[in-house]
Amino acid sequence: MSELAIAAQKLDAVDELAGKRAEFVLDTASDRAADAAGVVYLDGNSLGALPAVVPGRVEDVVRRQWGELRIRSWEESGWWTAPERIGDRIAPLVGAAPGQVVVGDSTSVNVFKALVGAVRMAGEGRDELLVDATTFPTDGYIAESAARMTGCTLRPVAPADVPGALGERTAAVLLNHVDYRSGRLHDLPGLTAAAHEAGAIAVWDLCHSAGALPVGLDEHGVDLAVGCTYKYLNGGPGSPAYLYVRRDLQDRFDSPLPGWNSHAEPFGMRTGYEPAAGALRGRVGTPDILSMLALEAALEVWDGVPVEAVRAKSLALTDFFLECVAAYVPEGRVVCVTPVAHEERGSQIALRCDDAGDVMKRLIERGVVGDFRAPDVLRFGFTPLYVGFADVERAARVLAETLA
Amino acid sequence: MSELAIAAQKLDAVDELAGKRAEFVLDTASDRAADAAGVVYLDGNSLGALPAVVPGRVEDVVRRQWGELRIRSWEESGWWTAPERIGDRIAPLVGAAPGQVVVGDSTSVNVFKALVGAVRMAGEGRDELLVDATTFPTDGYIAESAARMTGCTLRPVAPADVPGALGERTAAVLLNHVDYRSGRLHDLPGLTAAAHEAGAIAVWDLCHSAGALPVGLDEHGVDLAVGCTYKYLNGGPGSPAYLYVRRDLQDRFDSPLPGWNSHAEPFGMRTGYEPAAGALRGRVGTPDILSMLALEAALEVWDGVPVEAVRAKSLALTDFFLECVAAYVPEGRVVCVTPVAHEERGSQIALRCDDAGDVMKRLIERGVVGDFRAPDVLRFGFTPLYVGFADVERAARVLAETLA
Repeated sequence: MSELAIAAQKLDAVDELAGKRAEFVLDTASDRAADAAGVVYLDGNSLGALPAVVPGRVEDVVRRQWGELRIRSWEESGWWTAPERIGDRIAPLVGAAPGQVVVGDSTSVNVFKALVGAVRMAGEGRDELLVDATTFPTDGYIAESAARMTGCTLRPVAPADVPGALGERTAAVLLNHVDYRSGRLHDLPGLTAAAHEAGAIAVWDLCHSAGALPVGLDEHGVDLAVGCTYKYLNGGPGSPAYLYVRRDLQDRFDSPLPGWNSHAEPFGMRTGYEPAAGALRGRVGTPDILSMLALEAALEVWDGVPVEAVRAKSLALTDFFLECVAAYVPEGRVVCVTPVAHEERGSQIALRCDDAGDVMKRLIERGVVGDFRAPDVLRFGFTPLYVGFADVERAARVLAETLA
Repeated sequence: MSELAIAAQKLDAVDELAGKRAEFVLDTASDRAADAAGVVYLDGNSLGALPAVVPGRVEDVVRRQWGELRIRSWEESGWWTAPERIGDRIAPLVGAAPGQVVVGDSTSVNVFKALVGAVRMAGEGRDELLVDATTFPTDGYIAESAARMTGCTLRPVAPADVPGALGERTAAVLLNHVDYRSGRLHDLPGLTAAAHEAGAIAVWDLCHSAGALPVGLDEHGVDLAVGCTYKYLNGGPGSPAYLYVRRDLQDRFDSPLPGWNSHAEPFGMRTGYEPAAGALRGRVGTPDILSMLALEAALEVWDGVPVEAVRAKSLALTDFFLECVAAYVPEGRVVCVTPVAHEERGSQIALRCDDAGDVMKRLIERGVVGDFRAPDVLRFGFTPLYVGFADVERAARVLAETLA
């Protein structure tokens, strides 16, 4: 056994989160069919693994709540209040006090709500939107639409250049907390403060950070934020996203999608729109109950897990992966595009190589599942709740063999 | 046994759709616990009953597709193409050829896409939106937002007055095919033709008609349409809605929510937005797979069911309910607000009485489940796939006893 394999065993033995792995469906017969050694799943930053509690809960929602109680479940099974109840469950994971997060719709739709809402909160004469030039594409496309529909100009800016680009015409800035491709962690406290200094609204996309590291929305005075729930929060494929509106801004939040669920009295069936108070002003239409309650069950794995412990293990995993890659992979064969500094790293490692698409295919065939992001990036996500150090060592070893 | 009870038995005996009831979860232990005689479920126009095929399918989606295949399911389990595939499954139910319907998001979000898209298709100088003054509220709220964000004026008009209100400034008109409260069926062919004569775009909300009667979108030249899937389509609580864009308008459809799923090459991860061709231009973010595939299973009950047969039974059911109500309920105690003429009736009967809220509570306690719509309407929905004539007779009888 190699030195690194022994080191991995020792690290796993003292891992306080190691027991959490048993709360997920992993090491299945399908995994062993794919590779005799099973699968190392490093794609939880795209689709989180299935929490073991979910299937039973979904079965209850379908068979009993829908099948037997039917319409009564809107009240009796708590369907109607699910968006804000589950929002409150996500809140501590992103450093938010209750009453500021609401679940529903896709991330893209929430980006639209947040950006239009931000422009409407901004002061007179502010007609420019800044957007992370390296953003996950949907944020950029939606920002373009939000700008077009609010009479703003959209200006893509690299996150590092945002402080210099902010000015008296900036209405809002939309940034990704962790870059989906490189895994770079951006400076949320600093960039939020810079936006505020310029009198602009700071909107953050937490898709690649929530559930992997502390976000501190309240602490750092973030104005609006959105995120998906199917990556590190393990909510299931396409599970509903969430919207955070800071409490003191909620009365000024003027949604471009004022569906009946955000009405002060939705069952009053009134002709005139009057927005509800609080986070549920961010709701739109009838909530998607099956997906939403699967997410609610999935969030139970977080009970008693401090996000700081998750962050510590995440950094240890990615440090160890870099160490193993340095030891196993011939120098120059891959270039790490994820920053080495802890304060600039999310919970993934992105390696660039010309034949990344092909390499990832062969890795997956050998039971190491990451993903490929065009044109040349191998992406490995490390979910601290279910990835161990032996997984990391094996992934690096198989990567080296594949690249050889 | 009363004459009407005997008549009901005879009608049930010759009902060609009677066998469909066995494909739904009804007459459960919970129903018998609520009332010894079981439950008459006349609220399928709010939440359709559970099709028996759904629980097993959802279990497969959760345990195998998500739990075992994980990320591979986006391709291997057909997750990625679900929105357009399921759209094509809904298409024949609304009279649309394939390639024009896409599933995803809530009805409210789709109303926004459709209306903004309609205004952008309308000719120069058209800056007025007409909306059904009696619409389900969310359509009105969203129409107000769409008007505000496109520089249009919003004008609420009773559907009957639409022809007179259309003019050279009308960009689009948004109408409900069946009124959610009264159950009135509006003249889709006539109003669409009137809109077109005035050079305006016709947008229809099919929430209360799809799955209950023929819609004929293609035949009548409707431009855009939206609908939910949890009423007569039985997709489950808050299941995703759909958007229809007529084929020859798709190239001009300019969505206000251009999420990455509507990009011509979504995995190209390009900075610039380039819309996909066809119906999938109406997609936005990552599709909500659990709810979407539950819907796909639910649609299987439609195999071999002509919507014309559904319509014939629906009218027979509502005719019979009116006959029973007339026979059992003291004259003047309720006023029927649903039109008697078949060509003006959807698949529900709405009865007005001052104490409707209280009456509905007592009806539900006695196992007859309809719903209450403020301020004074008792609403009874008749889903031809699982409601029989004996159900109808019992509902009217219990209603009469409750009102006495």
